[in-house]
Amino acid sequence: MRALWLEGHVVKMIDQRLLPHRLEIVSIRSAGEMAEAIRNMTVRGAPAIGSAAAFGMALASMSGADLAEAARILKASRPTAHDLFFAVDFMLERIAVGENAASAAERYTDNIVAKCRMIGENGARLISDGANIMTHCNAGALATVDYGTALAPMREAHRQGKKIFVYVSETRPRLQGMKLTAFELLNEGIPHAIIVDGASGHFMRKGVDLIIVGADRVAINGDFANKIGTFEKAVLAKEMDVPFYVAAPMSTFDFKMESGEGIAIEDRAEDEVTDLNGSRIAPDGCTALNPSFDMTPNRYVTGFITEVGVLKPADITRVMGARI
Amino acid sequence: MRALWLEGHVVKMIDQRLLPHRLEIVSIRSAGEMAEAIRNMTVRGAPAIGSAAAFGMALASMSGADLAEAARILKASRPTAHDLFFAVDFMLERIAVGENAASAAERYTDNIVAKCRMIGENGARLISDGANIMTHCNAGALATVDYGTALAPMREAHRQGKKIFVYVSETRPRLQGMKLTAFELLNEGIPHAIIVDGASGHFMRKGVDLIIVGADRVAINGDFANKIGTFEKAVLAKEMDVPFYVAAPMSTFDFKMESGEGIAIEDRAEDEVTDLNGSRIAPDGCTALNPSFDMTPNRYVTGFITEVGVLKPADITRVMGARI
Repeated sequence: MRALWLEGHVVKMIDQRLLPHRLEIVSIRSAGEMAEAIRNMTVRGAPAIGSAAAFGMALASMSGADLAEAARILKASRPTAHDLFFAVDFMLERIAVGENAASAAERYTDNIVAKCRMIGENGARLISDGANIMTHCNAGALATVDYGTALAPMREAHRQGKKIFVYVSETRPRLQGMKLTAFELLNEGIPHAIIVDGASGHFMRKGVDLIIVGADRVAINGDFANKIGTFEKAVLAKEMDVPFYVAAPMSTFDFKMESGEGIAIEDRAEDEVTDLNGSRIAPDGCTALNPSFDMTPNRYVTGFITEVGVLKPADITRVMGARI
Repeated sequence: MRALWLEGHVVKMIDQRLLPHRLEIVSIRSAGEMAEAIRNMTVRGAPAIGSAAAFGMALASMSGADLAEAARILKASRPTAHDLFFAVDFMLERIAVGENAASAAERYTDNIVAKCRMIGENGARLISDGANIMTHCNAGALATVDYGTALAPMREAHRQGKKIFVYVSETRPRLQGMKLTAFELLNEGIPHAIIVDGASGHFMRKGVDLIIVGADRVAINGDFANKIGTFEKAVLAKEMDVPFYVAAPMSTFDFKMESGEGIAIEDRAEDEVTDLNGSRIAPDGCTALNPSFDMTPNRYVTGFITEVGVLKPADITRVMGARI
C-alpha cells in the first residue's frame, strides 16, 4: 500500500496522524482539502507532500477549478518542504503544455518512488554488514509515498542480507520517529530500538557507524533544513567522527536558494509540545516555542544520498540540471 | 513548602510524579518505603534524593531497625546520584558518634538548602541583565528540597531585578523540564518557554547567553553525569561558544571517582519512553532503550557553580576537603 493514490476523482491517503494504532484512509476531493491535509499533517514528509500537492493540482484541474488559485492555496499550506513548491510548479508546467493532470501527478509520484529506490541502492553501499545506524523523524515509505529516503538504504541493505541495527530517535513533538519509523522498521523485520532525542549523543559515543536523515529543503551550498533535532545530531556526529548523510531526491534541492539562511522555518502551534493525545501535560499558563525544523550548515554533512549518486555539498551545483 | 520534611516519625513529601496537575503529599514510614519512593521517582533530583535518604536512615534509627540493612536498601534504590551515597554514609557516621538521627537528617537537609542559596548567589554573578539562559531537566526547589541548584542562580538574578528569559527543554522521557521546571519558573514569575529537547541547538544558534544544568555525580576530573540529554547540550554549547555551567553542591562530588568513565548510568524501564500517562504511544512490538543519564567530559564544562564558588574542572581537587 502506498501512502497516497488517486481513485477516479478522489485522492485516498493514509491518515498518518493516527498511526501506528489505527489505519484509516481519508478521501480528498479538492485542492483546498489537500492543502488542509498537508497543513494538519494527515500527510507529511517532503516527498509525500510533493506528491500530495501534485494530486491536489490534478483534483483542481479535473474539476475545472482556478489553477492559479489552487497553486496559491497549496503553496501556502506549509513553508519549509521544497518538494511542495517543486511539485506545484511541475504540475502548472505540465498542464500548460496540455498533459493530462491526473497522468502528470501519477507520473510525478511514480518518479518519486523510483528515485527513492535509487537512493536505496546508492545508500546501501555506504552500509557495512553489522552497522549501527541512527535516523531521525520519519523519512520512510510514509514520508515519500513508498520506499523512503533515509530508510531506503537501510531497507536495501537489509534486503541484501546485511545485519543492521537502527537507533530511532523518537522525534518530539509529534513523535514521527517512534510512531512511524519504528512501525516501518518493525514491519520490515529490521532490528531497532526507540530512544529519546536527547539520548542520541549518548549512543553515538557508544558506537554508531553512520547517521542517515531526510531533508525538507537543500540549498545550493549544501545547507539543509530538516525536522527539529537534526542540527543537533549533525553537530554531535562531527564531534564524534560519525559520518552524517542526508538522503533526498533532487526535488528537495532548491536551486534558487543560495544558503540555508534563507530557508523559512515553520513555527507550529505550541500545543504540539504542551499537549499529547488531546490532554495537556504542561503546567497551565506556561508557553512553548515550537519550530518544526532546523537548519544544518553544509560543513556537518558527509554526503547527500540522491538518485544520481552520493554527492558532497560542493558537488551540488554540478547536478543542477537533473530533473524529475 | 519544602519538597520533603519530617513530622514526628513520618516523612512527608510531595509526589513529584503527579505535578503540575495534582499536589499530593505522601507519607513514608520506613527506610524500605523511602527506597521505593526514590526508585519510583516520587522524589527525584540528586540533592533531594540525598535528603530523602538521610530521612530514610532517621526512620530506621527511630524504629530501631537494622541500620546496615537500611543503608544497603537505600543505596540500592538508584545508582547514579552521588548525594544518595553521601547522605547515607553521613547518617551512619553521625549515628555512630551518638547524634540524634532525626536531628542529623534535619541538619543535612538545612545544609543542602543553605548551600543552594549560596549556589544561587555565586551563580547570579554570571547572569547579566537581559540574559537568555537555557536549562535541562529539573534542578529547582523540588530537586533539592528548596531553592534549587541550576535554578538557584536564575531565582537570585530575578530577585535582584535582572530581566532574564529561560529556555526550558522538556526533558524526555519523564518531562521534568516541562512539568517541574516550567512550573517553578511560572510560580516565581520568571519569563520562560518550554522547548523540545531537539530544539536546544536551534535556539543556541538564535542566541543563548549561558546554560546552567544540575548534576547527579561529578568525578574529581570534572566529568559529570546528569539527566540524559545534558551531554548533547554541552557539545552544542562548545560548538556555538555558549558558556556551559553545572550547578551542584559538594555533596554531589564523588572524590573517590577519578573520571566519568566509572559513573554507573542507570537504565530505566522502556515503558517510560513507549508509554505516556499509562497509554502506549509506540507501536506494539517495538522496543526502546532508556538510559536515564549521560556523562559529559570535563572539556565541555565552563565551570561548576558550588557553595564554595565557581570552580574550573581543574580546581575540583583543591576543594576536596569541603564537607557538609
